[in-house]
Amino acid sequence: MSNRSDIREDGAVGTDAQQARLSIRRGEWTGPTAGLAPGFTQANLVILPADDAFDFMRFCQRNPKPCPLLEVTDPGSPEPAETAPGADLRTDVPRYRVYREGEFDGEPGDVVDEWRDDLVAFLIGCSFTFERALLANGLPVRHVEQRCNVPMYRTARECTPAGRFAGPLVVSMRPMTGEQAIRATQVTSRYPGVHGAPVHVGDPAALGIDDLAAPDYGDRVEIRDGEVPVFWACGVTPQAVAAASRPALMITHAPGHMFLTDLDDDRLAVL
Amino acid sequence: MSNRSDIREDGAVGTDAQQARLSIRRGEWTGPTAGLAPGFTQANLVILPADDAFDFMRFCQRNPKPCPLLEVTDPGSPEPAETAPGADLRTDVPRYRVYREGEFDGEPGDVVDEWRDDLVAFLIGCSFTFERALLANGLPVRHVEQRCNVPMYRTARECTPAGRFAGPLVVSMRPMTGEQAIRATQVTSRYPGVHGAPVHVGDPAALGIDDLAAPDYGDRVEIRDGEVPVFWACGVTPQAVAAASRPALMITHAPGHMFLTDLDDDRLAVL
Repeated sequence: MSNRSDIREDGAVGTDAQQARLSIRRGEWTGPTAGLAPGFTQANLVILPADDAFDFMRFCQRNPKPCPLLEVTDPGSPEPAETAPGADLRTDVPRYRVYREGEFDGEPGDVVDEWRDDLVAFLIGCSFTFERALLANGLPVRHVEQRCNVPMYRTARECTPAGRFAGPLVVSMRPMTGEQAIRATQVTSRYPGVHGAPVHVGDPAALGIDDLAAPDYGDRVEIRDGEVPVFWACGVTPQAVAAASRPALMITHAPGHMFLTDLDDDRLAVL
Repeated sequence: MSNRSDIREDGAVGTDAQQARLSIRRGEWTGPTAGLAPGFTQANLVILPADDAFDFMRFCQRNPKPCPLLEVTDPGSPEPAETAPGADLRTDVPRYRVYREGEFDGEPGDVVDEWRDDLVAFLIGCSFTFERALLANGLPVRHVEQRCNVPMYRTARECTPAGRFAGPLVVSMRPMTGEQAIRATQVTSRYPGVHGAPVHVGDPAALGIDDLAAPDYGDRVEIRDGEVPVFWACGVTPQAVAAASRPALMITHAPGHMFLTDLDDDRLAVL
């Protein structure tokens, strides 16, 4: 990852993301992170014991579209030294979720007391990065227009399993015209490290989705005349899969309450 | 990885790569693999005990340009089920290298007797994929013209370490004109999963390379008037780094004797 903001030529040195993390660490910011430190890459978080970590990392490697790895920490280290040096993953997310044996056990503001020497943190790319590129290209992002969550659906497509980790691909959906879908494919293809090109366009049934008006996660959005649904692999997939495998302990971010890295969204484009 | 040849529309079902692997398994083909089953993705091989595998996988994730992971097998399984289902990594490489505590211990034609229940195999992308794209774009690949090995150099750039694994970036070099270097950058940027864009163009000293005529691995090639050296991250990096860490056991392919997957080179392009 060469996109560390500490080497930005403009000398900005990642101030925005660092400031935002500090506010979060101090408890001054406890809300969702959409719109915070624009242009800095936000990430999904999954924390697992080392016993499960190698299996989970192979799961992510085998399913790179839903599970694009931005960083995997050393066992016991809460610092994502590559993507946000100096940050602390125990305190720098506004809201966490804790699961024990797969059962939800609260939404704390930090996980200092949960931390152990055998925990490994996975930072996984998030659709905020490519949505910024879609908007910059004049393409519609309906849930942003409607100020709600992106609609997400469990599909009939199984991810490639690894060890104890297996489960269906989850996709997010953005409606647009066929012409816009073509440009959106070009734009998001440039970001293979954060979900990349869509996985499907047009027919929800091809993915085993019965009713676009009833998403499994997030909110329903309007689909206008002449629009088709465009589906991208979604970062909810690894969380859903990890939870379903009922590990002894799993910690994630709470939905919408992401981790802010020092990476520069624009620098994640490969071309 | 959606590039499995078993879903090729032309119904070829990976015959060429499968046939080549069978010839290798039977001992009928024992030589280098360049030019074998053209269009099928060839891979570097590193096999390590499970104790080292999670560290090594994090090393690869942190250094994706030299170490692009195509597949990581389940511990104990010699089958790369994603990229070459039915293959056997103990027999399907023409020539192996075995290292014990970092010391070279022979070049067997198979490693059936070395196999253990705790071994993990890493298949890592290889420059053959993007060289095919360079040639298809009319760009020069000098070592192919000169029928020798690509020149490779240890640089002064350190990879990002992980666990016991640390060491310098190794690069390969192909001379071309400045105009050709621009097109080569476009072409190889489409293949982020197999080394991607060059890491440097023009000045060997910027990488800490003293003498282009004295490569650390491979052969010297001619640099013609008006040509500049173009450097790509090289798949020798993970092997060199793994060997330097002196693991109890490491098995690799012998240079030039790669593993043939069922992946389609063309389908590795992201755009």
